[in-house]
Amino acid sequence: MMREDLTAEEAKAIRACGAAMAEAARAVILPHFRTAMTADNKAAPGGFDPVTVADRAAEEAIRAVLAERRPQDAILGEEFGRQAGESGLTWVLDPIDGTRAFISGTPSWGVLIALQDARGPFYGIIDQPYTAERFEGGLGTARLAGPRGESPLRVREGVALDGATLFTTFPEVGTEAEGAAFRRVAREVRLTRYGLDCYAYALLALGQIDLVIEAGLQSYDIAAPIAVIEAAGGVVTDWEGGPVHEGGRALAAATPELHRAAMALLAGQGA
Amino acid sequence: MMREDLTAEEAKAIRACGAAMAEAARAVILPHFRTAMTADNKAAPGGFDPVTVADRAAEEAIRAVLAERRPQDAILGEEFGRQAGESGLTWVLDPIDGTRAFISGTPSWGVLIALQDARGPFYGIIDQPYTAERFEGGLGTARLAGPRGESPLRVREGVALDGATLFTTFPEVGTEAEGAAFRRVAREVRLTRYGLDCYAYALLALGQIDLVIEAGLQSYDIAAPIAVIEAAGGVVTDWEGGPVHEGGRALAAATPELHRAAMALLAGQGA
Repeated sequence: MMREDLTAEEAKAIRACGAAMAEAARAVILPHFRTAMTADNKAAPGGFDPVTVADRAAEEAIRAVLAERRPQDAILGEEFGRQAGESGLTWVLDPIDGTRAFISGTPSWGVLIALQDARGPFYGIIDQPYTAERFEGGLGTARLAGPRGESPLRVREGVALDGATLFTTFPEVGTEAEGAAFRRVAREVRLTRYGLDCYAYALLALGQIDLVIEAGLQSYDIAAPIAVIEAAGGVVTDWEGGPVHEGGRALAAATPELHRAAMALLAGQGA
Repeated sequence: MMREDLTAEEAKAIRACGAAMAEAARAVILPHFRTAMTADNKAAPGGFDPVTVADRAAEEAIRAVLAERRPQDAILGEEFGRQAGESGLTWVLDPIDGTRAFISGTPSWGVLIALQDARGPFYGIIDQPYTAERFEGGLGTARLAGPRGESPLRVREGVALDGATLFTTFPEVGTEAEGAAFRRVAREVRLTRYGLDCYAYALLALGQIDLVIEAGLQSYDIAAPIAVIEAAGGVVTDWEGGPVHEGGRALAAATPELHRAAMALLAGQGA
Protein backbone atom coordinates (compact mmCIF):
# COMPACT_ATOMS: atom_id res chain seq x y z
CA MET A 1 0.00 0.00 0.00
CA MET A 2 1.15 3.50 -0.84
CA ARG A 3 0.04 6.79 0.75
CA GLU A 4 -2.28 7.58 -2.17
CA ASP A 5 -4.21 4.36 -1.56
CA LEU A 6 -5.37 5.48 1.88
CA THR A 7 -9.04 6.41 2.21
CA ALA A 8 -10.03 9.46 4.24
CA GLU A 9 -11.23 7.10 6.94
CA GLU A 10 -7.91 5.24 7.03
CA ALA A 11 -6.03 8.54 7.21
CA LYS A 12 -8.18 9.54 10.16
CA ALA A 13 -7.49 6.24 11.89
CA ILE A 14 -3.75 6.70 11.36
CA ARG A 15 -3.85 10.17 12.89
CA ALA A 16 -5.82 8.88 15.87
CA CYS A 17 -3.31 6.07 16.26
CA GLY A 18 -0.43 8.56 16.12
CA ALA A 19 -2.02 10.65 18.85
CA ALA A 20 -2.54 7.56 21.00
CA MET A 21 1.10 6.54 20.54
CA ALA A 22 2.35 10.00 21.48
CA GLU A 23 0.09 10.08 24.54
CA ALA A 24 1.28 6.64 25.62
CA ALA A 25 4.91 7.72 25.30
CA ARG A 26 4.31 10.92 27.27
CA ALA A 27 2.71 9.02 30.14
CA VAL A 28 5.64 6.64 30.37
CA ILE A 29 8.45 9.16 29.91
CA LEU A 30 7.43 12.13 32.02
CA PRO A 31 7.77 10.43 35.43
CA HIS A 32 11.43 9.74 34.51
CA PHE A 33 12.29 13.25 33.35
CA ARG A 34 14.42 15.27 35.78
CA THR A 35 14.75 12.44 38.26
CA ALA A 36 17.90 10.70 39.34
CA MET A 37 18.27 7.92 36.84
CA THR A 38 20.81 5.45 35.61
CA ALA A 39 21.91 5.99 32.05
CA ASP A 40 23.25 2.81 30.53
CA ASN A 41 26.17 3.21 28.22
CA LYS A 42 25.61 1.48 24.87
CA ALA A 43 28.88 2.77 23.44
CA ALA A 44 31.10 1.97 26.46
CA PRO A 45 33.99 2.05 26.70
CA GLY A 46 35.03 5.26 25.00
CA GLY A 47 31.77 6.66 23.68
CA PHE A 48 28.79 7.93 25.61
CA ASP A 49 25.40 6.89 24.33
CA PRO A 50 22.96 7.13 27.18
CA VAL A 51 19.92 4.94 26.98
CA THR A 52 17.54 5.27 29.80
CA VAL A 53 14.83 3.16 31.23
CA ALA A 54 12.40 5.74 29.88
CA ASP A 55 13.63 5.20 26.32
CA ARG A 56 12.88 1.50 26.35
CA ALA A 57 9.62 1.78 28.28
CA ALA A 58 8.35 4.44 25.87
CA GLU A 59 9.04 2.32 22.79
CA GLU A 60 7.28 -0.62 24.44
CA ALA A 61 4.27 1.60 25.15
CA ILE A 62 4.17 2.82 21.55
CA ARG A 63 4.47 -0.73 20.21
CA ALA A 64 1.62 -1.82 22.47
CA VAL A 65 -0.65 0.79 20.85
CA LEU A 66 0.36 -0.45 17.39
CA ALA A 67 -0.19 -4.10 18.35
CA GLU A 68 -3.75 -3.25 19.31
CA ARG A 69 -4.67 -0.75 16.60
CA ARG A 70 -2.51 -1.51 13.56
CA PRO A 71 -0.96 -4.99 13.72
CA GLN A 72 -0.79 -4.98 9.92
CA ASP A 73 1.98 -2.35 9.79
CA ALA A 74 5.71 -2.98 10.06
CA ILE A 75 7.79 -1.24 12.77
CA LEU A 76 11.33 0.08 12.86
CA GLY A 77 12.27 1.37 16.31
CA GLU A 78 15.54 2.64 17.77
CA GLU A 79 15.44 0.41 20.83
CA PHE A 80 13.83 -2.81 19.60
CA GLY A 81 14.61 -2.92 15.89
CA ARG A 82 12.46 -4.21 13.04
CA GLN A 83 9.14 -6.03 13.07
CA ALA A 84 7.65 -7.16 9.77
CA GLY A 85 4.16 -6.20 8.60
CA GLU A 86 1.78 -6.85 5.73
CA SER A 87 0.35 -3.43 4.82
CA GLY A 88 3.40 -2.03 3.04
CA LEU A 89 3.49 0.75 5.64
CA THR A 90 6.20 1.06 8.33
CA TRP A 91 6.14 3.04 11.57
CA VAL A 92 9.54 4.51 12.30
CA LEU A 93 10.05 5.28 15.99
CA ASP A 94 12.56 7.09 18.14
CA PRO A 95 11.07 7.01 21.65
CA ILE A 96 13.46 9.70 22.95
CA ASP A 97 15.40 11.60 20.31
CA GLY A 98 18.03 13.57 22.22
CA THR A 99 18.75 11.37 25.23
CA ARG A 100 21.68 13.67 26.08
CA ALA A 101 19.23 16.57 26.33
CA PHE A 102 16.89 14.33 28.31
CA ILE A 103 19.47 13.41 30.93
CA SER A 104 20.49 17.08 31.19
CA GLY A 105 16.94 18.20 32.00
CA THR A 106 16.62 20.24 28.78
CA PRO A 107 13.19 20.27 27.10
CA SER A 108 14.57 19.90 23.56
CA TRP A 109 14.33 16.10 23.28
CA GLY A 110 11.28 14.59 21.65
CA VAL A 111 9.30 11.50 20.78
CA LEU A 112 9.55 10.86 17.03
CA ILE A 113 6.84 8.90 15.28
CA ALA A 114 6.65 8.55 11.49
CA LEU A 115 4.74 6.47 8.99
CA GLN A 116 6.31 5.64 5.66
CA ASP A 117 5.56 3.75 2.49
CA ALA A 118 8.02 2.59 -0.17
CA ARG A 119 8.72 6.22 -1.17
CA GLY A 120 9.49 7.41 2.37
CA PRO A 121 7.78 9.15 5.30
CA PHE A 122 4.45 10.89 4.68
CA TYR A 123 3.14 11.39 8.22
CA GLY A 124 5.06 12.41 11.32
CA ILE A 125 4.86 13.59 14.90
CA ILE A 126 7.51 15.43 16.92
CA ASP A 127 6.22 15.41 20.48
CA GLN A 128 7.77 17.29 23.43
CA PRO A 129 6.12 15.81 26.53
CA TYR A 130 7.42 18.30 29.14
CA THR A 131 6.29 21.42 27.27
CA ALA A 132 3.25 19.48 26.04
CA GLU A 133 3.91 20.52 22.44
CA ARG A 134 2.95 18.23 19.58
CA PHE A 135 4.11 19.05 16.04
CA GLU A 136 2.17 16.97 13.52
CA GLY A 137 2.45 16.94 9.75
CA GLY A 138 1.06 14.96 6.83
CA LEU A 139 -2.25 13.34 5.81
CA GLY A 140 -3.73 16.79 5.30
CA THR A 141 -2.54 18.42 8.50
CA ALA A 142 0.37 20.61 9.60
CA ARG A 143 -0.08 21.96 13.11
CA LEU A 144 1.37 22.54 16.54
CA ALA A 145 -0.96 21.63 19.40
CA GLY A 146 0.32 22.88 22.72
CA PRO A 147 -0.54 24.38 26.08
CA ARG A 148 -1.13 27.76 24.42
CA GLY A 149 -3.53 26.43 21.80
CA GLU A 150 -3.04 25.38 18.19
CA SER A 151 -0.94 27.03 15.48
CA PRO A 152 -0.54 26.07 11.85
CA LEU A 153 2.89 24.81 10.85
CA ARG A 154 4.20 26.81 7.93
CA VAL A 155 7.82 27.50 7.02
CA ARG A 156 8.78 31.14 6.61
CA GLU A 157 9.60 32.48 3.18
CA GLY A 158 11.55 35.40 1.79
CA VAL A 159 14.61 35.02 4.04
CA ALA A 160 17.91 35.19 2.13
CA LEU A 161 20.93 33.15 3.21
CA ASP A 162 22.56 36.14 4.90
CA GLY A 163 19.42 36.64 6.98
CA ALA A 164 18.92 32.99 7.87
CA THR A 165 19.06 31.19 11.22
CA LEU A 166 20.86 27.82 11.13
CA PHE A 167 20.74 25.07 13.76
CA THR A 168 22.66 21.90 14.38
CA THR A 169 23.01 19.74 17.49
CA PHE A 170 26.77 19.25 17.89
CA PRO A 171 29.26 21.97 16.79
CA GLU A 172 31.60 19.33 15.37
CA VAL A 173 28.85 17.99 13.00
CA GLY A 174 30.17 14.53 12.14
CA THR A 175 33.58 14.04 10.56
CA GLU A 176 36.18 16.77 10.13
CA ALA A 177 35.23 17.25 6.47
CA GLU A 178 31.54 17.41 7.38
CA GLY A 179 32.32 19.97 10.07
CA ALA A 180 34.22 22.08 7.54
CA ALA A 181 31.29 21.89 5.10
CA PHE A 182 28.90 22.95 7.86
CA ARG A 183 31.09 25.94 8.73
CA ARG A 184 31.04 27.10 5.10
CA VAL A 185 27.28 27.52 5.50
CA ALA A 186 27.53 28.89 9.06
CA ARG A 187 29.83 31.68 7.87
CA GLU A 188 27.18 32.94 5.43
CA VAL A 189 24.10 32.96 7.66
CA ARG A 190 23.04 35.56 10.19
CA LEU A 191 22.81 33.31 13.22
CA THR A 192 24.02 29.79 14.06
CA ARG A 193 22.81 27.96 17.17
CA TYR A 194 23.48 24.55 18.68
CA GLY A 195 22.07 21.82 20.86
CA LEU A 196 18.39 21.37 19.99
CA ASP A 197 18.09 17.80 18.67
CA CYS A 198 14.71 17.22 16.98
CA TYR A 199 13.28 20.45 18.37
CA ALA A 200 15.22 22.36 15.70
CA TYR A 201 13.26 20.61 12.93
CA ALA A 202 10.04 21.49 14.74
CA LEU A 203 11.07 25.16 14.88
CA LEU A 204 11.81 25.10 11.16
CA ALA A 205 8.31 23.75 10.45
CA LEU A 206 6.93 26.46 12.75
CA GLY A 207 8.58 29.18 10.65
CA GLN A 208 10.98 30.28 13.40
CA ILE A 209 14.28 29.20 11.86
CA ASP A 210 15.45 28.57 8.29
CA LEU A 211 18.02 25.77 8.11
CA VAL A 212 18.99 22.61 9.99
CA ILE A 213 22.13 20.71 8.96
CA GLU A 214 23.18 17.45 10.59
CA ALA A 215 25.32 14.40 9.87
CA GLY A 216 25.45 10.83 11.13
CA LEU A 217 21.69 10.42 11.43
CA GLN A 218 19.78 7.17 11.65
CA SER A 219 16.49 6.71 9.79
CA TYR A 220 14.48 7.06 13.02
CA ASP A 221 16.16 10.44 13.74
CA ILE A 222 14.95 12.01 10.51
CA ALA A 223 11.78 10.22 9.31
CA ALA A 224 9.33 12.24 11.45
CA PRO A 225 11.11 15.59 10.81
CA ILE A 226 10.88 14.94 7.04
CA ALA A 227 7.12 14.40 7.19
CA VAL A 228 6.49 17.38 9.48
CA ILE A 229 8.67 19.81 7.53
CA GLU A 230 7.37 18.74 4.12
CA ALA A 231 3.80 19.17 5.38
CA ALA A 232 4.79 22.70 6.45
CA GLY A 233 6.15 23.51 2.99
CA GLY A 234 9.86 22.93 3.60
CA VAL A 235 12.50 20.77 1.95
CA VAL A 236 14.51 17.94 3.55
CA THR A 237 17.15 15.99 1.61
CA ASP A 238 20.65 14.66 2.09
CA TRP A 239 23.54 17.03 1.39
CA GLU A 240 23.47 16.09 -2.31
CA GLY A 241 19.74 16.66 -2.75
CA GLY A 242 18.72 12.97 -2.60
CA PRO A 243 16.36 11.27 -0.16
CA VAL A 244 17.59 11.10 3.45
CA HIS A 245 14.92 9.03 5.17
CA GLU A 246 17.36 6.10 5.42
CA GLY A 247 19.63 8.36 7.51
CA GLY A 248 22.99 10.00 6.88
CA ARG A 249 23.55 13.71 6.36
CA ALA A 250 20.44 15.89 6.45
CA LEU A 251 19.80 19.37 5.08
CA ALA A 252 16.43 20.85 6.01
CA ALA A 253 15.50 24.21 4.52
CA ALA A 254 12.49 26.50 4.69
CA THR A 255 12.58 27.25 0.95
CA PRO A 256 13.98 25.80 -2.28
CA GLU A 257 16.21 28.91 -2.60
CA LEU A 258 17.83 28.39 0.81
CA HIS A 259 18.12 24.68 0.11
CA ARG A 260 20.00 25.32 -3.14
CA ALA A 261 22.30 27.91 -1.56
CA ALA A 262 23.16 25.71 1.43
CA MET A 263 23.68 22.62 -0.74
CA ALA A 264 26.17 24.51 -2.95
CA LEU A 265 28.17 25.61 0.10
CA LEU A 266 28.13 22.10 1.61
CA ALA A 267 29.54 20.83 -1.69
CA GLY A 268 32.31 23.42 -1.53
CA GLN A 269 30.87 25.78 -4.15
CA GLY A 270 29.98 29.45 -3.69
CA ALA A 271 26.45 30.32 -2.53
CA MET B 1 21.15 48.43 53.91
CA MET B 2 22.61 44.95 53.70
CA ARG B 3 20.78 41.63 53.29
CA GLU B 4 21.12 40.81 57.01
CA ASP B 5 19.25 44.02 57.92
CA LEU B 6 16.06 42.84 56.22
CA THR B 7 13.18 41.84 58.50
CA ALA B 8 11.12 38.77 57.70
CA GLU B 9 8.35 41.08 56.58
CA GLU B 10 10.65 42.99 54.26
CA ALA B 11 11.95 39.73 52.80
CA LYS B 12 8.38 38.67 52.14
CA ALA B 13 7.62 41.99 50.44
CA ILE B 14 10.70 41.60 48.24
CA ARG B 15 9.65 38.12 47.17
CA ALA B 16 6.12 39.36 46.39
CA CYS B 17 7.63 42.21 44.39
CA GLY B 18 9.85 39.75 42.49
CA ALA B 19 6.83 37.63 41.61
CA ALA B 20 4.93 40.71 40.43
CA MET B 21 7.88 41.79 38.27
CA ALA B 22 8.18 38.34 36.70
CA GLU B 23 4.43 38.21 36.03
CA ALA B 24 4.49 41.65 34.46
CA ALA B 25 7.34 40.64 32.18
CA ARG B 26 5.60 37.42 31.15
CA ALA B 27 2.43 39.27 30.19
CA VAL B 28 4.37 41.71 28.03
CA ILE B 29 6.76 39.25 26.39
CA LEU B 30 4.59 36.24 25.55
CA PRO B 31 2.47 37.93 22.88
CA HIS B 32 5.74 38.69 21.01
CA PHE B 33 7.21 35.18 21.23
CA ARG B 34 7.11 33.20 17.99
CA THR B 35 5.58 36.01 15.99
CA ALA B 36 7.06 37.83 13.04
CA MET B 37 9.01 40.62 14.64
CA THR B 38 11.65 43.16 13.80
CA ALA B 39 14.94 42.61 15.57
CA ASP B 40 16.91 45.83 15.81
CA ASN B 41 20.63 45.52 15.46
CA LYS B 42 22.50 47.23 18.30
CA ALA B 43 25.88 46.00 17.11
CA ALA B 44 25.45 46.84 13.41
CA PRO B 45 27.41 46.82 11.25
CA GLY B 46 29.35 43.60 11.73
CA GLY B 47 27.89 42.13 14.89
CA PHE B 48 24.41 40.81 15.51
CA ASP B 49 22.81 41.80 18.78
CA PRO B 50 19.09 41.53 18.37
CA VAL B 51 17.00 43.68 20.62
CA THR B 52 13.34 43.30 20.23
CA VAL B 53 10.35 45.35 21.07
CA ALA B 54 9.58 42.72 23.71
CA ASP B 55 12.91 43.31 25.45
CA ARG B 56 12.29 46.99 25.97
CA ALA B 57 8.60 46.66 26.81
CA ALA B 58 9.39 43.99 29.42
CA GLU B 59 11.98 46.13 31.18
CA GLU B 60 9.52 49.03 31.22
CA ALA B 61 6.89 46.75 32.76
CA ILE B 62 9.32 45.55 35.43
CA ARG B 63 10.41 49.12 36.22
CA ALA B 64 6.77 50.16 36.57
CA VAL B 65 6.29 47.50 39.28
CA LEU B 66 9.38 48.78 41.10
CA ALA B 67 8.27 52.41 40.82
CA GLU B 68 5.06 51.52 42.57
CA ARG B 69 6.30 49.01 45.16
CA ARG B 70 9.94 49.82 45.86
CA PRO B 71 10.89 53.33 44.69
CA GLN B 72 13.65 53.34 47.34
CA ASP B 73 15.77 50.75 45.49
CA ALA B 74 18.27 51.43 42.71
CA ILE B 75 17.94 49.72 39.32
CA LEU B 76 20.45 48.45 36.79
CA GLY B 77 18.78 47.16 33.65
CA GLU B 78 20.14 45.94 30.32
CA GLU B 79 17.93 48.16 28.20
CA PHE B 80 17.55 51.38 30.21
CA GLY B 81 20.68 51.52 32.36
CA ARG B 82 21.07 52.79 35.92
CA GLN B 83 18.62 54.53 38.19
CA ALA B 84 19.79 55.67 41.62
CA GLY B 85 18.10 54.64 44.87
CA GLU B 86 18.35 55.28 48.61
CA SER B 87 18.00 51.85 50.21
CA GLY B 88 21.46 50.50 49.40
CA LEU B 89 19.77 47.70 47.41
CA THR B 90 19.89 47.42 43.62
CA TRP B 91 17.64 45.42 41.28
CA VAL B 92 19.63 43.99 38.39
CA LEU B 93 17.45 43.22 35.36
CA ASP B 94 17.81 41.44 32.07
CA PRO B 95 14.31 41.47 30.57
CA ILE B 96 15.19 38.82 27.97
CA ASP B 97 18.44 36.96 28.50
CA GLY B 98 19.04 35.03 25.31
CA THR B 99 17.48 37.23 22.65
CA ARG B 100 19.05 34.98 20.00
CA ALA B 101 17.13 32.02 21.48
CA PHE B 102 14.04 34.21 21.67
CA ILE B 103 14.08 35.17 18.01
CA SER B 104 14.69 31.50 17.09
CA GLY B 105 11.59 30.32 18.97
CA THR B 106 13.61 28.28 21.49
CA PRO B 107 12.29 28.23 25.07
CA SER B 108 15.74 28.64 26.68
CA TRP B 109 15.69 32.44 27.08
CA GLY B 110 14.59 33.91 30.37
CA VAL B 111 13.70 36.96 32.38
CA LEU B 112 16.47 37.62 34.92
CA ILE B 113 15.70 39.56 38.08
CA ALA B 114 18.17 39.90 40.96
CA LEU B 115 18.47 41.98 44.10
CA GLN B 116 21.90 42.85 45.41
CA ASP B 117 23.51 44.77 48.25
CA ALA B 118 27.11 45.99 48.49
CA ARG B 119 28.36 42.38 48.68
CA GLY B 120 26.49 41.18 45.59
CA PRO B 121 23.26 39.37 44.62
CA PHE B 122 21.31 37.60 47.38
CA TYR B 123 17.94 37.05 45.72
CA GLY B 124 17.20 36.03 42.15
CA ILE B 125 14.59 34.83 39.68
CA ILE B 126 15.15 33.03 36.38
CA ASP B 127 11.75 33.00 34.69
CA GLN B 128 10.87 31.13 31.48
CA PRO B 129 7.51 32.57 30.39
CA TYR B 130 6.70 30.09 27.60
CA THR B 131 7.22 26.95 29.70
CA ALA B 132 5.84 28.85 32.72
CA GLU B 133 8.81 27.84 34.85
CA ARG B 134 10.07 30.15 37.59
CA PHE B 135 13.36 29.36 39.32
CA GLU B 136 13.66 31.42 42.52
CA GLY B 137 16.47 31.46 45.06
CA GLY B 138 17.46 33.44 48.15
CA LEU B 139 15.72 35.01 51.16
CA GLY B 140 15.07 31.55 52.54
CA THR B 141 13.75 29.91 49.38
CA ALA B 142 15.13 27.77 46.56
CA ARG B 143 12.42 26.40 44.33
CA LEU B 144 11.08 25.81 40.86
CA ALA B 145 7.42 26.67 40.41
CA GLY B 146 6.08 25.41 37.10
CA PRO B 147 3.17 23.88 35.27
CA ARG B 148 3.93 20.51 36.84
CA GLY B 149 3.99 21.82 40.40
CA GLU B 150 6.82 22.90 42.69
CA SER B 151 10.23 21.29 43.17
CA PRO B 152 13.01 22.29 45.54
CA LEU B 153 16.16 23.60 43.89
CA ARG B 154 19.17 21.65 45.10
CA VAL B 155 22.42 21.03 43.25
CA ARG B 156 23.45 17.40 42.85
CA GLU B 157 26.44 16.11 44.75
CA GLY B 158 28.86 13.24 44.38
CA VAL B 159 29.51 13.67 40.65
CA ALA B 160 33.21 13.56 39.75
CA LEU B 161 34.60 15.65 36.90
CA ASP B 162 34.68 12.67 34.52
CA GLY B 163 30.98 12.09 35.18
CA ALA B 164 29.94 15.72 34.92
CA THR B 165 27.70 17.50 32.41
CA LEU B 166 29.00 20.91 31.25
CA PHE B 167 27.06 23.63 29.45
CA THR B 168 27.95 26.84 27.69
CA THR B 169 26.03 28.98 25.22
CA PHE B 170 28.47 29.52 22.34
CA PRO B 171 31.06 26.86 21.39
CA GLU B 172 33.69 29.55 20.83
CA VAL B 173 33.31 30.85 24.45
CA GLY B 174 34.79 34.36 24.18
CA THR B 175 38.35 34.90 22.96
CA GLU B 176 40.56 32.22 21.46
CA ALA B 177 42.42 31.75 24.77
CA GLU B 178 39.13 31.53 26.65
CA GLY B 179 37.88 28.96 24.15
CA ALA B 180 41.04 26.90 24.65
CA ALA B 181 40.60 27.05 28.44
CA PHE B 182 37.00 25.93 28.09
CA ARG B 183 38.03 22.98 25.92
CA ARG B 184 40.52 21.85 28.59
CA VAL B 185 37.52 21.36 30.88
CA ALA B 186 35.27 19.97 28.13
CA ARG B 187 37.81 17.23 27.39
CA GLU B 188 37.61 15.94 30.98
CA VAL B 189 33.84 15.86 31.48
CA ARG B 190 31.36 13.22 30.37
CA LEU B 191 29.05 15.45 28.37
CA THR B 192 29.29 18.98 26.94
CA ARG B 193 26.26 20.76 25.54
CA TYR B 194 25.62 24.18 24.00
CA GLY B 195 23.07 26.86 23.44
CA LEU B 196 20.99 27.26 26.59
CA ASP B 197 21.63 30.82 27.79
CA CYS B 198 20.34 31.37 31.36
CA TYR B 199 18.41 28.11 31.32
CA ALA B 200 21.68 26.24 31.88
CA TYR B 201 22.14 27.98 35.25
CA ALA B 202 18.59 27.03 36.17
CA LEU B 203 19.29 23.37 35.33
CA LEU B 204 22.40 23.47 37.51
CA ALA B 205 20.34 24.77 40.45
CA LEU B 206 17.80 22.03 39.72
CA GLY B 207 20.48 19.34 40.10
CA GLN B 208 20.33 18.27 36.43
CA ILE B 209 23.76 19.42 35.27
CA ASP B 210 27.08 20.10 37.02
CA LEU B 211 29.01 22.93 35.41
CA VAL B 212 28.36 26.10 33.40
CA ILE B 213 31.29 28.06 31.99
CA GLU B 214 30.88 31.32 30.11
CA ALA B 215 32.86 34.41 29.16
CA GLY B 216 32.04 37.98 28.19
CA LEU B 217 29.10 38.32 30.57
CA GLN B 218 27.52 41.53 31.78
CA SER B 219 26.42 41.94 35.40
CA TYR B 220 22.74 41.55 34.45
CA ASP B 221 23.51 38.20 32.74
CA ILE B 222 24.89 36.61 35.88
CA ALA B 223 23.40 38.34 38.96
CA ALA B 224 20.19 36.27 39.10
CA PRO B 225 21.98 32.97 38.31
CA ILE B 226 24.41 33.63 41.19
CA ALA B 227 21.58 34.10 43.69
CA VAL B 228 19.58 31.11 42.45
CA ILE B 229 22.55 28.73 42.33
CA GLU B 230 23.96 29.80 45.70
CA ALA B 231 20.52 29.29 47.26
CA ALA B 232 20.53 25.76 45.78
CA GLY B 233 23.93 25.02 47.35
CA GLY B 234 26.18 25.65 44.35
CA VAL B 235 29.20 27.86 43.71
CA VAL B 236 29.50 30.73 41.18
CA THR B 237 32.70 32.74 40.78
CA ASP B 238 34.87 34.13 38.02
CA TRP B 239 37.49 31.80 36.51
CA GLU B 240 39.97 32.76 39.25
CA GLY B 241 37.59 32.13 42.15
CA GLY B 242 36.70 35.77 42.76
CA PRO B 243 33.28 37.44 42.64
CA VAL B 244 31.67 37.61 39.18
CA HIS B 245 28.53 39.65 39.79
CA GLU B 246 30.07 42.61 37.94
CA GLY B 247 30.29 40.36 34.85
CA GLY B 248 33.17 38.81 32.97
CA ARG B 249 34.01 35.10 32.93
CA ALA B 250 31.73 32.85 35.01
CA LEU B 251 32.28 29.39 36.41
CA ALA B 252 29.23 27.83 38.07
CA ALA B 253 29.64 24.46 39.77
CA ALA B 254 27.38 22.13 41.70
CA THR B 255 30.04 21.39 44.34
CA PRO B 256 33.28 22.89 45.70
CA GLU B 257 35.16 19.84 44.39
CA LEU B 258 33.96 20.35 40.79
CA HIS B 259 34.59 24.07 41.14
CA ARG B 260 38.20 23.50 42.17
CA ALA B 261 38.81 20.92 39.43
CA ALA B 262 37.33 23.13 36.69
CA MET B 263 39.17 26.23 37.92
CA ALA B 264 42.51 24.41 37.78
CA LEU B 265 41.86 23.33 34.18
CA LEU B 266 40.73 26.82 33.15
CA ALA B 267 44.02 28.15 34.58
CA GLY B 268 45.95 25.60 32.53
CA GLN B 269 46.77 23.22 35.37
CA GLY B 270 45.88 19.52 35.63
CA ALA B 271 42.56 18.60 37.23
